[in-house]
Amino acid sequence: MPTCLGTTGTPDAFMRRAAELALRGRGATAPNPCVGAVLVRGGDIVAEGWHKAHGGPHAEVNCLADAARKGVNPAECTLFVTLEPCNHHGKTPPCTGAILKAGVQKVVVGCVDPNPDVAGGGIATLRAAGVEVAVGVEEILCRDLIHEFVIWKTTGRTCNILKMASTLDGKIAARGGRPQAVSGPEAQKDVHRLRAQVQAVIVGGNTFYGDNPQLTCRLAEPDQAALTEGFCQPYAVIVTSSLPKAYSNFTILRQRPQQALFWTSEYAAKTPLADELRERGTRIWGLPELPGAGGRGLDFAPAFERLRQELSCHLTLCEGGGHLALSLCRQMLVDEFVLYLAPRVLGDAEGKSLFAGEAVQSMEQALPFRLAHASSCGEDLKLTYKPRGEA
Amino acid sequence: MPTCLGTTGTPDAFMRRAAELALRGRGATAPNPCVGAVLVRGGDIVAEGWHKAHGGPHAEVNCLADAARKGVNPAECTLFVTLEPCNHHGKTPPCTGAILKAGVQKVVVGCVDPNPDVAGGGIATLRAAGVEVAVGVEEILCRDLIHEFVIWKTTGRTCNILKMASTLDGKIAARGGRPQAVSGPEAQKDVHRLRAQVQAVIVGGNTFYGDNPQLTCRLAEPDQAALTEGFCQPYAVIVTSSLPKAYSNFTILRQRPQQALFWTSEYAAKTPLADELRERGTRIWGLPELPGAGGRGLDFAPAFERLRQELSCHLTLCEGGGHLALSLCRQMLVDEFVLYLAPRVLGDAEGKSLFAGEAVQSMEQALPFRLAHASSCGEDLKLTYKPRGEA
Repeated sequence: MPTCLGTTGTPDAFMRRAAELALRGRGATAPNPCVGAVLVRGGDIVAEGWHKAHGGPHAEVNCLADAARKGVNPAECTLFVTLEPCNHHGKTPPCTGAILKAGVQKVVVGCVDPNPDVAGGGIATLRAAGVEVAVGVEEILCRDLIHEFVIWKTTGRTCNILKMASTLDGKIAARGGRPQAVSGPEAQKDVHRLRAQVQAVIVGGNTFYGDNPQLTCRLAEPDQAALTEGFCQPYAVIVTSSLPKAYSNFTILRQRPQQALFWTSEYAAKTPLADELRERGTRIWGLPELPGAGGRGLDFAPAFERLRQELSCHLTLCEGGGHLALSLCRQMLVDEFVLYLAPRVLGDAEGKSLFAGEAVQSMEQALPFRLAHASSCGEDLKLTYKPRGEA
Repeated sequence: MPTCLGTTGTPDAFMRRAAELALRGRGATAPNPCVGAVLVRGGDIVAEGWHKAHGGPHAEVNCLADAARKGVNPAECTLFVTLEPCNHHGKTPPCTGAILKAGVQKVVVGCVDPNPDVAGGGIATLRAAGVEVAVGVEEILCRDLIHEFVIWKTTGRTCNILKMASTLDGKIAARGGRPQAVSGPEAQKDVHRLRAQVQAVIVGGNTFYGDNPQLTCRLAEPDQAALTEGFCQPYAVIVTSSLPKAYSNFTILRQRPQQALFWTSEYAAKTPLADELRERGTRIWGLPELPGAGGRGLDFAPAFERLRQELSCHLTLCEGGGHLALSLCRQMLVDEFVLYLAPRVLGDAEGKSLFAGEAVQSMEQALPFRLAHASSCGEDLKLTYKPRGEA
């Protein structure tokens, strides 16, 4: 079900607001989940908070601090929080303690902490102290928020967002044409907000050679303030079978060669060309062939593990093209698919399609997703999908 | 902006509910517009009404009757109505009279009546009698509701809805494959609701020959009750350059030959094959070539005029395929585009595209639309677009 933010007055709406706040910390809280909280009194939200950065105070504590600043007494409020409050000393004291100390009488929890060691512990502590606790409001939305946390806990790889933009007929460019801006200015701004949350932006060779992109996060004024201190531009990962010969032609290689990373064949990674690029600080990783693919594709899973282990990346953003996007989908490495749908019809079956690279004989072989969120983004629709069966 | 029905408590939400009610009369009210109304007291909707059928009472009158049935005093309520109340004797007495007689003190109007002869007249009458009138709540949504009425007033043709279903990557079938059910059961049910509102369903020859469809409205139980008395199945219009030889192979031609209508070339319409079909009551219309198209396409505009003049059709539903859909779009004959977007990725650039038939060299030549409405339909998204610049 698409979620329409802005709705107020119902428990679902308060939880959706908390979820919206949670997303402000996305990326910065890694490897912890992003969490949001609101205090509600008399049907109105009177205080807000979210977990802003790893090691900092949790959402509940920030929300209670906001209440204190505003002279709001939490004892008169209901606390809505997207994730079960923690019950243990980590980098900060347990949130259950802060909630009890503030005198909150009623807590609404989006979803329980999936960690089997602590699941239900926070809720049990609150209930034992006489606090009324409701669980499961906007539960799917709240579980989606911790999807990446579950990936970090249960795998060694990054959590990967695939972002694409297309016309209503699924086209990203005219026939033979280079990718043109399909979506409007609002959607293009939104992509930079996504880039602000990730530690690596990934593109295919066609995009790199055709567009000579910067792949940096370039936020407009009001959004810049949201960047955490010490923000670093994401790594630029280029997936290509042929390494560039003239590095000075490419903005990324000229301006920030040490943040550039090529994913190529194991063969290409051993060539003198690779060594030349390495001399300027650029990383070249040779990826193994996908087992059984008969030379038709690279196995990306080890690269996403290395990205996390060696370069401390937690979230990545793949921006296409269609061949790379499909490979990642087929290899079950896309954890979220963001589609900006432009209100236009190209009207040419030979226009460049969103996904490409396979001969699919039946609609039953289509990859299943689930709509997690829908919202307007200027004149475009921003649709967020999750792979079916996960999280 | 997508409209999320179900939101309550705000003027926008009340008007959206009125708009939702209005659509229940869509088709049946032709050639009058569909209109909806609600009475609101203390932040709650306490009575509802809509214009149900041409010649019957208007939305306001039905809403006031609903209030009377429920023992609600309209004088204590605000009336929300999608279109300016009428101020003249037509088939029924003026609604302004009924509103004043009921003692309503406040009226909120979605949009003014665009008819230059009456524009503002209803509002002026109410105001002169001391009623507080607000205008322009959810105005675009309300203007969209009367879009077809404007077409009927200003042109001689039918109003045409294009309906398609695709994967996220804009595919309606696998490569070489016949169209398979792309959308889920809810969306398929919804299509039958659309068919209940129109007087003709239009498909291309590939659909006719490949699927042997019925093209009838087959509603499930609860929806059947909504059909107006004397409901007739819509005409089945088949657009093809080659007429069928063995009519007994085709369900439509076997079961309801007199409701079948072929749009073909002027040449094919004069063949003995055409005459054979005509003998069983099937209509064959020869359409002129599109001027300047060099034999590449039919000119559909005269056929839509004839559909209205000769067969009293007001609304039509085109269900593809991609070539026909694109021709109608390019000829500016699509007044509404309904897209059921399935949460699946086919992942094959050679899969059958939503639209086909032209070689478009640049994204700038894409056809512009505007998102009018978005809602969930089972696991699919139902997206309603309007051509840009119209209505």
